[in-house]
Amino acid sequence: MSITTVACVGGGVIGAGWVARFIENGIDVNVYDPAADAQSKMQAVLDNADRAYAKLTMAQRPNKGAVVYCNSVEEAVKAAQWIVESVPERLDIKHAVYADIEAHAASDAVIASSTSGIMPSDLQSQLKHPERLIVAHPFNPVYLLPVVEVVGGTKTIVDTIERAKSFYSSLGMKPIHVKKEIEAFVADRLLEAIWRESLWLIKDGITTTEELDDIVRFGFGLRYAQMGVFETYRIAGGEAGMRHFLAQFGPCLTWPWTKLMDVPEYNDELVELIAGQSDAQSGHYDIRELERIRDDNLVAIQQALKANEWGAGLVLADYEKKLFDAGAKQSGDDQSIDESQVIRTTQRRVPPDWTDYNNHMNEARYLQCFGDASDAFMRMIGCDADYIASGGSYFTAETHIRHLDEVGVNQPIYTQTQVISGAGKKMHLFHSLHHGDGRLLATGEHMLIHVSLETRSASEPSPDILVNLTRIADQHAKLPMPDGAGRAVGQKR
Amino acid sequence: MSITTVACVGGGVIGAGWVARFIENGIDVNVYDPAADAQSKMQAVLDNADRAYAKLTMAQRPNKGAVVYCNSVEEAVKAAQWIVESVPERLDIKHAVYADIEAHAASDAVIASSTSGIMPSDLQSQLKHPERLIVAHPFNPVYLLPVVEVVGGTKTIVDTIERAKSFYSSLGMKPIHVKKEIEAFVADRLLEAIWRESLWLIKDGITTTEELDDIVRFGFGLRYAQMGVFETYRIAGGEAGMRHFLAQFGPCLTWPWTKLMDVPEYNDELVELIAGQSDAQSGHYDIRELERIRDDNLVAIQQALKANEWGAGLVLADYEKKLFDAGAKQSGDDQSIDESQVIRTTQRRVPPDWTDYNNHMNEARYLQCFGDASDAFMRMIGCDADYIASGGSYFTAETHIRHLDEVGVNQPIYTQTQVISGAGKKMHLFHSLHHGDGRLLATGEHMLIHVSLETRSASEPSPDILVNLTRIADQHAKLPMPDGAGRAVGQKR
Repeated sequence: MSITTVACVGGGVIGAGWVARFIENGIDVNVYDPAADAQSKMQAVLDNADRAYAKLTMAQRPNKGAVVYCNSVEEAVKAAQWIVESVPERLDIKHAVYADIEAHAASDAVIASSTSGIMPSDLQSQLKHPERLIVAHPFNPVYLLPVVEVVGGTKTIVDTIERAKSFYSSLGMKPIHVKKEIEAFVADRLLEAIWRESLWLIKDGITTTEELDDIVRFGFGLRYAQMGVFETYRIAGGEAGMRHFLAQFGPCLTWPWTKLMDVPEYNDELVELIAGQSDAQSGHYDIRELERIRDDNLVAIQQALKANEWGAGLVLADYEKKLFDAGAKQSGDDQSIDESQVIRTTQRRVPPDWTDYNNHMNEARYLQCFGDASDAFMRMIGCDADYIASGGSYFTAETHIRHLDEVGVNQPIYTQTQVISGAGKKMHLFHSLHHGDGRLLATGEHMLIHVSLETRSASEPSPDILVNLTRIADQHAKLPMPDGAGRAVGQKR
Repeated sequence: MSITTVACVGGGVIGAGWVARFIENGIDVNVYDPAADAQSKMQAVLDNADRAYAKLTMAQRPNKGAVVYCNSVEEAVKAAQWIVESVPERLDIKHAVYADIEAHAASDAVIASSTSGIMPSDLQSQLKHPERLIVAHPFNPVYLLPVVEVVGGTKTIVDTIERAKSFYSSLGMKPIHVKKEIEAFVADRLLEAIWRESLWLIKDGITTTEELDDIVRFGFGLRYAQMGVFETYRIAGGEAGMRHFLAQFGPCLTWPWTKLMDVPEYNDELVELIAGQSDAQSGHYDIRELERIRDDNLVAIQQALKANEWGAGLVLADYEKKLFDAGAKQSGDDQSIDESQVIRTTQRRVPPDWTDYNNHMNEARYLQCFGDASDAFMRMIGCDADYIASGGSYFTAETHIRHLDEVGVNQPIYTQTQVISGAGKKMHLFHSLHHGDGRLLATGEHMLIHVSLETRSASEPSPDILVNLTRIADQHAKLPMPDGAGRAVGQKR
């Protein structure tokens, strides 16, 4: 069953982050949060998410889901297939909210608690249908960080866990099933350990908050973005791996520096020390600026890892592939290509990193658009990934671009393609690049040559491709020659 | 005083990482390590570093420093200005090595210990010249992670600290001065806290090493690559910042999940549990593969942060700027431009992310090369960043590219530029792209128009630019018209 409507009870930073993750994936959300400023605070998170998703992927996403602000738990949950609880971390409050939910929700709607500490067995202890409760613990910003800890209680059934893993994966997340309950689960155990140690280091005057943060982000933080604790140390162990590392460092577990395990006293002095240093460190950014810097960095890091086919980048790549497939399917369903006219080959928005110091799309990206259009046309005639893997492809031999208008970041753009001629080894294409409003931005005239990837020299394409290419070329031959075709640089029409 | 010769005493993973960092920055290194396999193990690290630096920056780096393997401490240190000690973590061993160093080294050579735990005051207690000892604690891989903790002892003088900060910065590193001594300093306190907690989580069967690692690298690890502990939580505190965060989470310092502070017993059972899980998780990669995956990711993450002008990316950008400046200065010293001939405008190597599914440089990158060549030529005639900031620039109106040959990853390439005509608002350039061996890869013919960035329409360039452009255009008019100029797509010569 595909989830189309989710209820979010509690709309703080985490609840709002869930709402953003859902609606960016085309899911409608009913929100209930009794706080007077809940709606305006949530809108700030949704705005950030919109901005981040525009950069995260070029794939066409489903139409954004709707947010309905409700006046009661009943109103929020009655039509929901999935219910996210993100209310304050007190068991009595959560039990009261669950009673309200069970009074009005479908009995098979999953209840997913965002708690960062309370064990699911305690959460589900008073439920009529405890088998459908899980903890799904996400991390801020929920709309960008892939991980979600999925934890069941003693009464949670396997089917609920499986549904959760499948649902969160479909949202571009990486669900990790924590199979044994423990208070605070896994990530927050680790984060608490760092936090406790960090407080001591500040309190004892060893370092400032800024120095400590720099030691993290210029050092092991870079490692942790791509490999975790054990894989990192496995490498440190060299050829002999983890056993060698443990032999080397296991004994020092009892050394003095691992014994700093009291908790510092939480008092005004500690608060002022830390908050004062934090102001000195980050106070020149307002919180929205910091959030956007963070989001831009998280997007860029995940894209960098995608290029390396690793870790969080693989999750992003899988997510995009699903989006691309869905987009391709949708195009196929909605319309078949009219080969008698110029063909819509690509559409996207201008990514932020495509613009240059002149604040418009860099000239090289025009050619990228036309290259992508050529690729799309190649796929249409059968020169797809499988064909290329079999040893044939088209290489561009020659290109003529006319830059007619500028286009800025995040603007919608599309390409159209006309076949000037297509026969034998040659394919002569004329692309036009348009703003979403139809305005002509550039034209790209291209001569492509079919090559054998083995010999790297010109060769005949497969008979299937040749049939498809010539069929379209014959129809396009009846179209007027496009304006600007066949011209040299600087040549007047 | 510029450091040209360093001694490295101890050549394990950390010592070898230092050697790599030094020689990639043009510094000669004398190494002493008595282990029989020290040289072959070090070579593996140096190979990795070579590979990573080829990807890290396109800037021209200084000629690689030489490594000399020495037969004694004396031989290694006698001519060194900087001495790195990376011997086993036992104070008696370190004291003995220091005595040997002081017997043979210049008295003002800095002694920098790579210790990850011992306090510098203890290290320097028996030195004749204790004022020159520091701890400079780096992180694996030393050649790629920017951070180095710089710690002085009670007898260390300020000048030594300042020299260290300056030296490590020149190597593309981010030195953080830890101003108060503590065993294990800062990063390893935090890492020990995570490690201790991780061991419990595995031992208690809450999670496996792979699940724990995934929870890190798909979650908070992505955050820590760009913001540290305190800045991250400042954001979590929302508008009210760190004070609000502390008010919310300070009290829970005494909650049960922060109390798991014993150390697990180090025994065979624990070793087998962890090493077995680690084998299941990562055993399908050999250690070299893992190191290279890690290095590629660290490079990509730092480049991603560079594009966002943040954190470790800023360190990389500073480092590259110094390299580019040094390269430009060197070019300026070596030769002045001969304006009567075609002009060498750019040179670089093909970055890994410039290649596509056909395993050669993607067509869009050809235009990027030509765009960069146009930019370089613009700077030569005075259309530089200052001029653009004042409101004028050249936009490309038209482009004709002939793709003549393929080029693969990491290959050296350069561009040459000939002015076809240059007068008034128009600049007609003809670039050629060559492999480092001279082979012609492509030609790019471009019509650029000078524009006012305010009106976004054509305008006259400044008189200075016009003078420079016409002077070169007049000289280039005497050159033969380049092959392929003035042609339309598909037009025979």
